[in-house]
Amino acid sequence: MSNDEVAIRNLIDSWVRATEAGDVDALAPLMADDMVFLTPGREPFGKREFLERSRQSTGMKISIRAEINELSVVGDLAYCWLKLAVTVTPDGGAAMQRAGHTIGIYRREGEQWVLARDANLMT
Amino acid sequence: MSNDEVAIRNLIDSWVRATEAGDVDALAPLMADDMVFLTPGREPFGKREFLERSRQSTGMKISIRAEINELSVVGDLAYCWLKLAVTVTPDGGAAMQRAGHTIGIYRREGEQWVLARDANLMT
Repeated sequence: MSNDEVAIRNLIDSWVRATEAGDVDALAPLMADDMVFLTPGREPFGKREFLERSRQSTGMKISIRAEINELSVVGDLAYCWLKLAVTVTPDGGAAMQRAGHTIGIYRREGEQWVLARDANLMT
Repeated sequence: MSNDEVAIRNLIDSWVRATEAGDVDALAPLMADDMVFLTPGREPFGKREFLERSRQSTGMKISIRAEINELSVVGDLAYCWLKLAVTVTPDGGAAMQRAGHTIGIYRREGEQWVLARDANLMT
């Protein structure tokens, strides 16, 4: 496995752990400033909106299982196809399950890889 | 614009025109043999299933508007973010509108670019 592949796998791990821990400040440096999130049925949104919404989700317990189906790196560009299963449990509420796939576009910025585009097909 | 960008834009144009014309044979060489289509709420599917389903859709009039929001090429890998609006009119039926975004992963195979992965967020 190349160093770039290891770096991107570590980035995905960090993203999962930060999300589960509700550590929004740890998520911010993992994505590009011009980050674009694409999800079904709504307009694309960016980094600021994602971080604001994540801050409003504290109080929920989030558990994520992420499987890497494919990871391909060429130069400073990479994509990763993930299979995700997410369980969200609101305070005192019932657990909600979401599952599905994502395609993420990663970019090398200086020494660091960041997520730049994310197409999230979870339902 | 680089030759690779022109080639991928032409591929997208060919895809749109072949789909509108119901010309399934013209779609086949535009995608990789290991093509993966990702759509919300169902399991990923490949080239053969896509072509079979496309052949069953003849008799529908399809009209597509595709806007390229972003196209980025690095070596033999590229991604393109499209905004799509699709109108499907069954024989004697009412027109149905679908709209949304896609992220496509393109790969150079020999002299030719092909679509290899497609995350389609249309609803």
